[in-house]
Amino acid sequence: MHERIHHRAFVDRLMSAEQAATFIKPGMTVAMSGFTGAGYPKAVPGALAAQMESQHAQGQDFKINVLTGASTAPELDGVLAKAEGMNLRLPYMSDPELRRRINDGNMEYMDIHLSHVAQHAWFGFYGKIDVAIVEVVGVTAEGDLIPSSSVGNNKTWLEMADQIIIEVNTQQSAAMDGMHDIYYGTALPPHRKPINLTTVRDRIGQKYMDIDVTKVVAVVETDAPDRLSPFAPVDETSTQIADHLLDFLDYEIRQGRLTEKLLPLQSGVGNIANAVLAGLARGGYKGLTAYTEVIQDGMLELIKDGTIEFASATSFSLSADGIDEFNKHVDHYRERILLRAQEISNHPEIIRRLGCIALNGMIEADIYGNVNSTNVLGSHVMNGIGGSGDFARNGYLSVFMSPSVAKGGKISGIVPMASHVDHTEHDTMILITEQGLADLRGLSPKQRAQLIIDKCAHPEYRPMLQDYFDRARKESYGKHTPHLLGEALAMHQRFFETGDMRLAK
Amino acid sequence: MHERIHHRAFVDRLMSAEQAATFIKPGMTVAMSGFTGAGYPKAVPGALAAQMESQHAQGQDFKINVLTGASTAPELDGVLAKAEGMNLRLPYMSDPELRRRINDGNMEYMDIHLSHVAQHAWFGFYGKIDVAIVEVVGVTAEGDLIPSSSVGNNKTWLEMADQIIIEVNTQQSAAMDGMHDIYYGTALPPHRKPINLTTVRDRIGQKYMDIDVTKVVAVVETDAPDRLSPFAPVDETSTQIADHLLDFLDYEIRQGRLTEKLLPLQSGVGNIANAVLAGLARGGYKGLTAYTEVIQDGMLELIKDGTIEFASATSFSLSADGIDEFNKHVDHYRERILLRAQEISNHPEIIRRLGCIALNGMIEADIYGNVNSTNVLGSHVMNGIGGSGDFARNGYLSVFMSPSVAKGGKISGIVPMASHVDHTEHDTMILITEQGLADLRGLSPKQRAQLIIDKCAHPEYRPMLQDYFDRARKESYGKHTPHLLGEALAMHQRFFETGDMRLAK
Ligand SMILES: CC(C)(COP(=O)(O)OP(=O)(O)OC[C@H]1O[C@@H](n2cnc3c(N)ncnc32)[C@H](O)[C@@H]1OP(=O)(O)O)[C@@H](O)C(=O)NCCC(=O)NCCS
Ligand SMILES: CC(C)(COP(=O)(O)OP(=O)(O)OC[C@H]1O[C@@H](n2cnc3c(N)ncnc32)[C@H](O)[C@@H]1OP(=O)(O)O)[C@@H](O)C(=O)NCCC(=O)NCCS
Repeated sequence: MHERIHHRAFVDRLMSAEQAATFIKPGMTVAMSGFTGAGYPKAVPGALAAQMESQHAQGQDFKINVLTGASTAPELDGVLAKAEGMNLRLPYMSDPELRRRINDGNMEYMDIHLSHVAQHAWFGFYGKIDVAIVEVVGVTAEGDLIPSSSVGNNKTWLEMADQIIIEVNTQQSAAMDGMHDIYYGTALPPHRKPINLTTVRDRIGQKYMDIDVTKVVAVVETDAPDRLSPFAPVDETSTQIADHLLDFLDYEIRQGRLTEKLLPLQSGVGNIANAVLAGLARGGYKGLTAYTEVIQDGMLELIKDGTIEFASATSFSLSADGIDEFNKHVDHYRERILLRAQEISNHPEIIRRLGCIALNGMIEADIYGNVNSTNVLGSHVMNGIGGSGDFARNGYLSVFMSPSVAKGGKISGIVPMASHVDHTEHDTMILITEQGLADLRGLSPKQRAQLIIDKCAHPEYRPMLQDYFDRARKESYGKHTPHLLGEALAMHQRFFETGDMRLAK
Repeated sequence: MHERIHHRAFVDRLMSAEQAATFIKPGMTVAMSGFTGAGYPKAVPGALAAQMESQHAQGQDFKINVLTGASTAPELDGVLAKAEGMNLRLPYMSDPELRRRINDGNMEYMDIHLSHVAQHAWFGFYGKIDVAIVEVVGVTAEGDLIPSSSVGNNKTWLEMADQIIIEVNTQQSAAMDGMHDIYYGTALPPHRKPINLTTVRDRIGQKYMDIDVTKVVAVVETDAPDRLSPFAPVDETSTQIADHLLDFLDYEIRQGRLTEKLLPLQSGVGNIANAVLAGLARGGYKGLTAYTEVIQDGMLELIKDGTIEFASATSFSLSADGIDEFNKHVDHYRERILLRAQEISNHPEIIRRLGCIALNGMIEADIYGNVNSTNVLGSHVMNGIGGSGDFARNGYLSVFMSPSVAKGGKISGIVPMASHVDHTEHDTMILITEQGLADLRGLSPKQRAQLIIDKCAHPEYRPMLQDYFDRARKESYGKHTPHLLGEALAMHQRFFETGDMRLAK
């Protein structure tokens, strides 16, 4: 029966998702598990959404604030967004339904660095956390929690929340037991100590999460799988981006700035990052390491073939095929993957110490190297900054990658001025599109601009960008970062007006 | 005679600044001491500039790349800029002559986080360092260097450079001997270890800087004082800004988020930061600490009256009055001030661990909380980002302060869209102008915008900003960060056209 729940107190609180959801009241702040579509609660949010809808039908207000690890899935963000049940949501998200409501202006979304979430919650910046809802693989006889396919902020939510709802998901492989490292050495300033992690493999915590059993108000059993979204197939564009990256890494090795073992890789979310990672297999590397947030399919392949010998992350983010592969060879992966809390996977202290190579996708970059990761055309949020800033700022190398155009060529990924800035010129070193790679290290804004136009812009947009830059060098108010503010965003504006950033022929 | 040089090998290499300068050849990369107008070499740069000018007069090219700690003075940046002797200059600068040439587009300037400089040099991103020129207070009998009024990147320059020129400045107080803590535990990834500094007072290094005496090609004696620029007098605007900050800190204490000891203060450069610090004396605090970059006059006053009981920095930046005060009571200050390398004073690991309260000036902020610290009207660089990003990203609180208007009201410090972004919406928590304080923690972009308009904008600009925001909320492409890209920079553009951001009446 309750083969995953080995502690009496938890069995005693078993109930339906509907009953559990009644602990959540309007106006509460609810912190949930879940990171990039893995390890999120699968039943209670749906039951809660139903209760919200029935309240709304009776003219009653029922909205809550929702904090998570990162993006979840239709069963959480989707249903709560549809029910118009969220006031504020933070941090990273990627659910289409939720995204639509945020961009319609109907709810509040706060986009913060993933390394900041837990500490800001502890600092009291988000107020009190009323309820935590956390998915686990099981409960031990000692009453400890076996973490699920993501760790995210779960330790923090369990510690901070007044009341706790646990979802025990029997679909999640019990073989994950032992793959987690939960660090309990954090503290608030002025009591913080160095975090003693010096290699990606280091275990600095415990396998299970502690819980104050008196705070547990409900336990719910579930058996639904994680989101398991498929990745876009590797195409020519992403292959070219991967090739530019491989050439660059080879060059760095020849220059003596990297060894054949490179340094711990971080790989962002999204199709491009996934495809580029898969491309790394062609590099002939062996015994690399990763210190990253998510294990996507591309990473699993590299671990399978020995390109990567050890990966630290905070979450899985696999497709259905990926999860099959993982389950089939779980003994192999258990020895090579460790999941940590996101305050550790994304910690500036550790990322800088290890010297990560940060590989992240982007929406657009401007000719001076400012990167927009979040707001399409300056205002429409895509997913959020996630951990890209944690790694780009603190890593050994910060690489941003994107196709040079989007929407069939109607939008250029290289623009005169970024319509939103998530990573400033001070934080970007390497830009890659399928056209080429711009190495911005040691360059002034003017030098960067010429290189980015030459190497990264699509040929259809190159003359337009060159013309802007040439005129700006002559006419700009200051000539350190030459700009013509009257037309710095004209390409974006033209897209609104004509549906195409290109000039009519 | 050589009362400051107690080692034979150094005495043997004594020569004039003119002779020393001949070691520097066209195209070299020269790394110099100096941070915010303190501890920079005072003689060799001038002699070098004269040699450059005579070469230029003969039609010969003579330019070098110059790396420093941060800003220096007319005797270094000024003379080399006038001589058109710099190809590339990095990082922070503030000399008017140098600034003018950069903004004329005649030389390259690279603006990077102060915490990145030393490590990027070690990573090889700036190529080889040919010569280091470092000012010291003296040389011990063992051949160690007694650091001067700034530490900056000196340890790194001494270790990396092929050849070293030492300037021994007898004007610098010998009483500074013992006030430095030079950490030798850094390494390159993957060999980095935790840095064991857990309070602002911790000594983790040695008093003196090591030097490989065989690399010393010249020793020059000097006796000129540091730059010693005066600060603008505390005026009503900065008093109001300080008062808003004091109210806010009181509120945080009442909320239980801070204690009466606060957390280590970081205070940026510039008049506003200096005046605000002086204002802190009115708060009635005792026994505070500072973990910061520079000790300005305002900080000295706080140390004098016991408001601050210990301050860690990398440099002094005093006026002539400040230096008098320091010299007069040097025994008091010696026990309460420690100067470290800037890779430690600005280290993300330490700043996050200590939980600094980051107080920095800004040029402008937009209604969503993106901050421009560097480029006036998007293109004209003022000084550079300095360490503001190191502290804003990693501190416990990130505060940005500025008068609500500049140039007698013709320019608003609050704009619809920042014309340059140095600190993104993800890194700014508190904005203060003389008008008021906006606490952005836990807020979405739309919520932030209304608060910033209400609290921080100048009344003359408030209606204009409100109108933009209201229309953007209706008409923006996406409504997460509502923007009308066709007019997001219109206030700036209007200033170019009419000399005033305000609409004609
Ligand atoms: C930027 C980001 C959205 C790119 O995602 P991706 O899956 O690699 O890239 P894709 O090229 O497939 O683009 C995703 C979508 O954005 C659209 N897009 C990309 N650039 C665009 C642009 N300049 N203008 C308009 N749309 C754009 C694509 O067309 C695509 O839209 P679709 O879903 O309607 O087809 C993604 O990397 C991201 O969210 N990054 C921020 C967070 C992050 O870096 N995290 C890393 C650590 S958690
Ligand atoms: C932003 C910064 C320049 C403000 O300096 P400050 O001395 O406190 O502020 P002031 O109001 O006196 O402004 C300095 C100058 O900038 C001008 N200025 C400020 N805001 C402006 C704006 N929005 N548009 C045009 N000019 C502006 C002022 O008019 C003044 O010009 P002046 O010298 O011709 O009189 C300064 O804080 C800085 O350089 N910051 C970046 C680096 C940093 O934060 N370092 C901290 C750690 S090292």
